Amino acid sequence: MGLVYYQTVELTFDSCDRASHVKLPALLADCLMVSTKQSEQLGRGNDYLIERYGLVWVITDYEMTIHRLPVFGETIKIETEALSYNKLFCYRRFHIYDQTGALLLDILAYFALLDPKSRKAAVIPDDLVAPYRCPFVKKIQRSSKLKPLETPIQQTYPVRYFDIDMNGHVNNSKYLEWMYDALGDAFLGKYRPTQLTLTYKKEVPPGGSITSCHLLDGETSYHEIMSNGQLSAQAKIEWQPISIESEKTSDL
Amino acid sequence: MGLVYYQTVELTFDSCDRASHVKLPALLADCLMVSTKQSEQLGRGNDYLIERYGLVWVITDYEMTIHRLPVFGETIKIETEALSYNKLFCYRRFHIYDQTGALLLDILAYFALLDPKSRKAAVIPDDLVAPYRCPFVKKIQRSSKLKPLETPIQQTYPVRYFDIDMNGHVNNSKYLEWMYDALGDAFLGKYRPTQLTLTYKKEVPPGGSITSCHLLDGETSYHEIMSNGQLSAQAKIEWQPISIESEKTSDL
Repeated sequence: MGLVYYQTVELTFDSCDRASHVKLPALLADCLMVSTKQSEQLGRGNDYLIERYGLVWVITDYEMTIHRLPVFGETIKIETEALSYNKLFCYRRFHIYDQTGALLLDILAYFALLDPKSRKAAVIPDDLVAPYRCPFVKKIQRSSKLKPLETPIQQTYPVRYFDIDMNGHVNNSKYLEWMYDALGDAFLGKYRPTQLTLTYKKEVPPGGSITSCHLLDGETSYHEIMSNGQLSAQAKIEWQPISIESEKTSDL
Repeated sequence: MGLVYYQTVELTFDSCDRASHVKLPALLADCLMVSTKQSEQLGRGNDYLIERYGLVWVITDYEMTIHRLPVFGETIKIETEALSYNKLFCYRRFHIYDQTGALLLDILAYFALLDPKSRKAAVIPDDLVAPYRCPFVKKIQRSSKLKPLETPIQQTYPVRYFDIDMNGHVNNSKYLEWMYDALGDAFLGKYRPTQLTLTYKKEVPPGGSITSCHLLDGETSYHEIMSNGQLSAQAKIEWQPISIESEKTSDL
C-alpha cells in the first residue's frame, strides 16, 4: 500500500445525467484529476514525467464496484493510493465516499507508461514511483479476459472534434459513452451499473467513425468498441433495476 | 450593476481540446456553476426557486468576446454579476481573467424564468432578484437577430443518452458542440473563435436526431440547429487564424 491522497468534489449540473446521477465518464475524469494532483504534490506531475523520461501515463484497465452512484449537488470524497507496481503496470485504487462516510465506488485502475512518439509501452522506472511508497510486486496482475462477441448488435458513431484530447486520440471517457449510448434510453432509464470491467486495447485516431457493439445477457452487458476493423476497447457491465437501488439509497 | 461574485477554476485535462485550449461548452458550464454559487450564497439557489416559485432559470442568449482561450492547467478567475433585469430577462456578465489579471473572455448571458411543467416563460418577481442588487430597467434588450440560412451545409447528429440533462432535454452545451463539429477538424485546427452570438429558441427532446446547419462566409460562420423541422438554436461565430492568436498569447 502507498501514500493516501484525497480531494473533495462537488458534483455539478453538467456532470450529472437526466436522473441526476453522476455520469460515470465524468466521475472517472474527476478521479484522474485527483491522482494527477497527488503526482504533482509528490513532484511526479505530468510535466516532470515528459521532461525527465519522455513518457506519459495511460490507463489500460478499470475494474469497479458501484454501491451507489452519487447525485447532483452531492459533495464526494475521492481517495486514492498507488497499491503496487511491476515492470509494466502501476495499480491504483480510488475509493469514493459520500458525506456520511459510506463507500460509493471502489475503483481499481491499471496505469502503464507510454512513449507518446512510438506509442509503445515503457518499463516503469523505480525512482519514478518511489515517492508514492508502494511496493514493487513482481507478479503482473491482469484484468479478467473477455471473449470476443459473436453476432453483437452494432451501432456506428462518427468521431467528433471534441472527442479528441491533448494526446491526439479519442479521450478515454468517450469509449464508455459509446458503450452506454448503444444500450438505449429505455434500458438506461431502468437500470444502474453495479460492476464494470473496462479494458483499453488500442487508441482511436481523430476522424472516421467507430462501431459500438454490444450483447445483453440478462442483467449483464458485454461491449466492444471497434475502430478500423480493430478492437479498441472491451467491457462487461453488470446492472440492477433502479428500484432496488432506490430502496438501498433511501436507507442512507 | 449588481453584486460581484467570483470563483477560481483550474482547467482540467478533460475540459480541454486537442490543442490544449479549454472547450467553450465546458467553460460555459463552469460559468453557470459560478452563477449558481452566487445565487446559493444570496439565498436564491435552484432549490429555493423551484420550491418558492415553481420555476427554473434558463439561458436564452450568449454574446461573447474571446480575447484568448485559456489552456489546460491554467487557473482562471470567473467573475460574475447580474447587470440589470426587466419583466422577461435578467442580464448577467461573466468576466474571465487569467492569473496576470488579463481579461480572457467577456460573456453576456440572458437568463429567463421557465415553468418546467408548462415550458412557458414567467415574469421575473422583484423579490427574487432583489438580493443581487441589480437595477430594474424597463427596456427589453434582445440579441441581434440572425437571418435564416439559405442552402446551408447540413449534418445529422443522433441525440445521445448523455446529451440529456436533469431538465429532461438536451443540455445547452451540446448545441455548441454540434455547431463546432459541423465545421470539421481541418477548419477548427486552423481557427479560434473571437466573437460568438448564440440564441436558444426551442428545447431538443431526448431521442431522434438533430441537423447542424452551417455556412461559412470568410472568417464568419453562421449556424442553425434544427430539431423536428423547427429551429432550436442559432449562432454567429467570428474566427481568426490561430497564428495571429499565438503571437498575441506569446506577448503575455
